[in-house]
Amino acid sequence: MVGLGRMGGNMAERLRAAGIEVTGYDANPQNSEVATLADLAAALPQPRRVVWVMVPAGAPTAAVLDELGRVLDEGDIVIEGGNSHFEADQTNAAKLAERGIGYVDVGVSGGVWGRENGYGLMAGGSDADIETLMPVFDALRPEGPREEGFVHVGPVGAGHYAKMVHNGIEYGLMQAYAEGYELLEARDDLVPDVGAVFTAWQRGTVVRSWLLDLMVRAITTDPGFEEISDWVDDSGEGRWTIEEAINSAVPLPVISAALFARFSSRQPSSPAMRAVAALRQQFGGHATKAAQQA
Amino acid sequence: MVGLGRMGGNMAERLRAAGIEVTGYDANPQNSEVATLADLAAALPQPRRVVWVMVPAGAPTAAVLDELGRVLDEGDIVIEGGNSHFEADQTNAAKLAERGIGYVDVGVSGGVWGRENGYGLMAGGSDADIETLMPVFDALRPEGPREEGFVHVGPVGAGHYAKMVHNGIEYGLMQAYAEGYELLEARDDLVPDVGAVFTAWQRGTVVRSWLLDLMVRAITTDPGFEEISDWVDDSGEGRWTIEEAINSAVPLPVISAALFARFSSRQPSSPAMRAVAALRQQFGGHATKAAQQA
Amino acid sequence: MVGLGRMGGNMAERLRAAGIEVTGYDANPQNSEVATLADLAAALPQPRRVVWVMVPAGAPTAAVLDELGRVLDEGDIVIEGGNSHFEADQTNAAKLAERGIGYVDVGVSGGVWGRENGYGLMAGGSDADIETLMPVFDALRPEGPREEGFVHVGPVGAGHYAKMVHNGIEYGLMQAYAEGYELLEARDDLVPDVGAVFTAWQRGTVVRSWLLDLMVRAITTDPGFEEISDWVDDSGEGRWTIEEAINSAVPLPVISAALFARFSSRQPSSPAMRAVAALRQQFGGHATKAAQQA
Amino acid sequence: MVGLGRMGGNMAERLRAAGIEVTGYDANPQNSEVATLADLAAALPQPRRVVWVMVPAGAPTAAVLDELGRVLDEGDIVIEGGNSHFEADQTNAAKLAERGIGYVDVGVSGGVWGRENGYGLMAGGSDADIETLMPVFDALRPEGPREEGFVHVGPVGAGHYAKMVHNGIEYGLMQAYAEGYELLEARDDLVPDVGAVFTAWQRGTVVRSWLLDLMVRAITTDPGFEEISDWVDDSGEGRWTIEEAINSAVPLPVISAALFARFSSRQPSSPAMRAVAALRQQFGGHATKAAQQA
Repeated sequence: MVGLGRMGGNMAERLRAAGIEVTGYDANPQNSEVATLADLAAALPQPRRVVWVMVPAGAPTAAVLDELGRVLDEGDIVIEGGNSHFEADQTNAAKLAERGIGYVDVGVSGGVWGRENGYGLMAGGSDADIETLMPVFDALRPEGPREEGFVHVGPVGAGHYAKMVHNGIEYGLMQAYAEGYELLEARDDLVPDVGAVFTAWQRGTVVRSWLLDLMVRAITTDPGFEEISDWVDDSGEGRWTIEEAINSAVPLPVISAALFARFSSRQPSSPAMRAVAALRQQFGGHATKAAQQA
Repeated sequence: MVGLGRMGGNMAERLRAAGIEVTGYDANPQNSEVATLADLAAALPQPRRVVWVMVPAGAPTAAVLDELGRVLDEGDIVIEGGNSHFEADQTNAAKLAERGIGYVDVGVSGGVWGRENGYGLMAGGSDADIETLMPVFDALRPEGPREEGFVHVGPVGAGHYAKMVHNGIEYGLMQAYAEGYELLEARDDLVPDVGAVFTAWQRGTVVRSWLLDLMVRAITTDPGFEEISDWVDDSGEGRWTIEEAINSAVPLPVISAALFARFSSRQPSSPAMRAVAALRQQFGGHATKAAQQA
Repeated sequence: MVGLGRMGGNMAERLRAAGIEVTGYDANPQNSEVATLADLAAALPQPRRVVWVMVPAGAPTAAVLDELGRVLDEGDIVIEGGNSHFEADQTNAAKLAERGIGYVDVGVSGGVWGRENGYGLMAGGSDADIETLMPVFDALRPEGPREEGFVHVGPVGAGHYAKMVHNGIEYGLMQAYAEGYELLEARDDLVPDVGAVFTAWQRGTVVRSWLLDLMVRAITTDPGFEEISDWVDDSGEGRWTIEEAINSAVPLPVISAALFARFSSRQPSSPAMRAVAALRQQFGGHATKAAQQA
Repeated sequence: MVGLGRMGGNMAERLRAAGIEVTGYDANPQNSEVATLADLAAALPQPRRVVWVMVPAGAPTAAVLDELGRVLDEGDIVIEGGNSHFEADQTNAAKLAERGIGYVDVGVSGGVWGRENGYGLMAGGSDADIETLMPVFDALRPEGPREEGFVHVGPVGAGHYAKMVHNGIEYGLMQAYAEGYELLEARDDLVPDVGAVFTAWQRGTVVRSWLLDLMVRAITTDPGFEEISDWVDDSGEGRWTIEEAINSAVPLPVISAALFARFSSRQPSSPAMRAVAALRQQFGGHATKAAQQA
C-alpha cells in the first residue's frame, strides 16, 4: 500500500483484519514501514507482486507510478485506487505495459466509514488481472453479495470513469438535500425544527439514503449549521463529469448546477452579479443597491 | 378511510393488520363498504370520530371535506392525507374549525411499498389532535424508533409543507441518478453493462439509497429502458416547491432543473428550440438544421 | 397622470412635449398639481376622461384604482401603466367595468432613457379603448414605425403579460452578459482590459444590443465594478415569469437560473451550501472548510 | 485568403471593395485562384506577406498552417481567422515562430451580414504584427469608431478567447429570447400574435438588440416556426466556454443551461428521462407513462 493517509491507512487496516499481509509505504517516513518504493518492492512476495497506490491524483500519483515502473517487474500489478482521470489511467497503463506490468484502476467510495462498513469498489482492467486481485477486493468491499459492492466495469480507465460519474451523482444528491434544507428553514413558522423532519425521513420515505442519515448526524451535531462556513470545495471529479458530458453531448443540468453552486459559494463577491447590478443601475438610473427594475 | 385507491386501500389494510378497525368509503360503490359519507360517519364509534381522507388533491378533496363538514360533529377529527397544498389545509382547517371539527394534515411517503414497509409520515396540527391520533400513526409508520418515520412538523399545513419539500428533493435525487445513468450509457466502450455499475453502488458507496435500489430493480427489469417512453409526468408538489422557493427567495437550481427536464420531456417539439434554430439560420445564412454557428 | 416618480414624471414631460395636456397627481403634495384624485377627476376634460396610473404595483395601485372607481364615470378610461400582475388587471378591469369605466393595461419599457428615446409599449384592452388612446401611445412611443415600438397585444392583462415576459428575457440577457464578463475577467493574462472587449462588441457582432451599450457605459464609469456590491434585487415580474412557466409547463432553465443567481447574490451565507459543507464533513471526516471529497 | 467559403469569400470581397488586393485559395480548385498554397505564397508581394486563414477549426486549419510553415518565410504573418481554440493558437504560433513567421488570431463575428455591415473583430498577437495588419482590420470592421468594432485583446490566443466568450454569451442571449417566445406562445388566449410583440420590442425597450431584429425576421418569415425542426446544433466554442469556466471555477448557470438545451434538442429519446420514468414506476407501482407521483 503506497499512501497511508485517511483512505490508504484505513484500507490497509481492513485488509489486515481480513488476513491479508500488507506492507505500507508513505512519503512521510514516520508513517512508513519501508524507506523507499524500491524497498517496498523488495519486501513483497514474488512473483505477481501487487502494489495498491492511494495518493493524491495528478503529479503525486504520476511520480509514484513512474518509480514503480522502475522497481517492479513483468507480471506484477499496480492498482491505482486514487481519483485519477480515466484517461490518465489509459496513459499510465500503456507505459507500465511496456515493461509487462499490469494496471488496474479502482474507484473507491465510502470515505472514513469504509474501514468499518467496507468500500464500494469499481474496477477497470483485464479479466486476468481482476481475477488475480479478487481476494483483495473481497476483503475491502462490504459484507453481502459481491455484485452489490464490487463491479468490474470494463477495460483500464473504466473503474475511474464509473467513480467519476458516481461523484457527479453525489454532487447532485447533496445539492438536492441542501436545497430542501434551505426551503424548510425558510419557513420556521411552519417548521420550527428542521432536524426533526430530516430525522423522520430516515424510514419509509422515498428520499431515504445514506447521505440523508449523514445529514441527520450533521444537523444533530450542529443545528442550523452555525459553526460551519458556506464555502464548499470541489474535487476534480465533479469537473471531469461536466467535461465528459460535454464530450458526449449529454445534458447534465442538475449536476452542473450543483458544481456551479460550489464555485459560487467560494466567491467573496461575484463579478457577474456586480455586472448585473451595474447594468440595472444604467437603465434604471439608480445609484444604490436597492435599484428598481425598469 | 375515504378513498380506497392504491394508497388508501393499502393503508386501510396496514391499519387493520395492526388491529385498528377501519370502515372504508370510496366514490366507486363497488369498492365501498358504505353508501355515503353520512353512512360512514354514522358507522364510526363516537365521540371523537376520526376520518382519514385519501383522495386526489384539489376539487375531489375539497368536495369530500365539504361533505364531512356537514356529517361530522364537534370533537371529531379529519385527517387530510392526500397531496393538498399546505395553504389549502389552512383554509380547510379554518372552515371545519367553525363547526368544532379538528383538522390534521399528513404527508405520506412510501408509495406502493408502504403497506409492507410502513409509511413515512409528516403531520401538521394541534398537539392535542396529534396525540389523539398517535395510535393510527404508529400503525402506519415503519418499524423502528418513532422519530425516524414520523414527525409532528408544526401547525396545520406544516405536514404538507414538509411533504412538498420532500417531493422537491425527490425530483432532484431522481434527476441526479438519471443524469449519471445517461453519462455511463454514453460510453459503452468503457461501461458495457450500466446495470452492473448501479448494482454495485448499493453497498458501501456514498450514493446508496432506496431510490438507487429501485433504479437497480428498474434496470434489471428492462435494461436500457427500451420498453419505456422518456415522457415524465410531474405532480403538483414539484411545482409548488418552486413557487414556495420564489416566495421565500430561496435559490433552487437543482430542483428547478429537474422539474424543467420533465416539462421538456413531454414536448414533442420544443417551441423554444425551434426559435433558436430559426435565429441561427438568420445570422448564419443556413437553411438546414446543420446550420453553422457564426 | 397619477404618480409622478421617475417613470410617471418623465412620461408626463414627454406627453406635454408632444402637445398633450397633462394634469399630475402624486401622493406627495409637494409634487402634486391637485390635492386629491377627486380634484384630478374634476380637472380633466369630459367626456371620456383618461387617467394613467403609474404607481408601485400591489397595494398602492389597488388603492388608487379603488378611489378612481369612485371619482370617475361611465365612459372614462383608466390606464394601469405600472407593473401589475396580469391577473390583477383582469380583476381590476372587471370591478371598474361594473361602473362602465374602461381599463387598459400597458407594460412600459425603457427606464430613465424613455423620456428622450421614447418608451416601448405593450397594451391590453378592448379595440375601442386602445383606439381612443392611440394619440397618447404615439406620443410616448419611440420615433419610427408604430409597430416597432407599440403593440396592442390582446385583451385586458395581455399588455402586462407581455411585459412580464419581456422582463424575464431581460433577466436572462443580463445574466448572459454578466457570465461572459466574469469569464473574460478570470483570464487577465489574456484579457487585460475587459472593457475594451465589450466596447468592441458594439458594432458588427452577433451580441450587440442596447444592454451591451449600457454595459460599456457601466464598465467605462467603474472598471472592474469596484464601487458596486454584488447584491442584486429582483422585481415581481421575474418571479411571475417563472410562476407562469410552471402554470403552462414551459421549461425556463435560463431565466430561472438568472433569477436564482439574484436570490443567491443577496444571501450573506447560503444555508444550502452550509448543509453541503456539513455533509462533506460527515463522509469525508474533515473538520475544516478545505474538506476533501470522498 | 485561404478558404473561400461563406465567411472567407465574403471577407475577400469586402477587402477588395476597400481597395486591398486579395489572392484567394480554396481546397476546391473551381473556387480557387491559385493551384496550391505554394502558388499563393509566390503570388503575394514580398516582404511581409500576409495570409488570412479562414477554414474549419481543427484538422483543416492545422493542415493549412503546417503547409504555410513550409511555404512562407521570416517576416511573413499568418492570421488564423477561423474558430480555433485559443490554446491551439498558442501551439500554432510557437511552431511558426521557429521559422520567424508571425501569428495573429482573430475572432470574427457577424455571419453572413458581415460583408455589408462589416465584421466585429477580436485580435490576439504582438503589437507590431497587429499594427502591420491594421489596414486589413480597418477594411473588414464596421463603419464607426475603430474601438467599437475592433479590439486588440492581448497576446496570441486572446482573440479567440474573447470570441469564445462572445459565442458563449450568444448562446445565453438566444436561449433567453427563445424561452420568452415559448412563454408568449403558451398563452394564445392573451397573445394571439407573438410576432407582433417581438416586432414591437425593437424600439425603446430594454431587450432590443440585433438578435431581436433577426428574431423578428425569422418570425415574419415563418410564423410559429412551423417549417423548422427543434434540432439545434452547437459549435465547439460553446463547449469550450463551459470547459474554461470549469478551469477558472467561474459559475455559468445560464450559458451551460443554453448549451444543455441544445444537447437535449438533438435527442430523439432522452436516456435520463427514461430512467426517471422507470424510477417513478418502481415506487409508484405504475406501468404506464401517466404514472402518479408517490
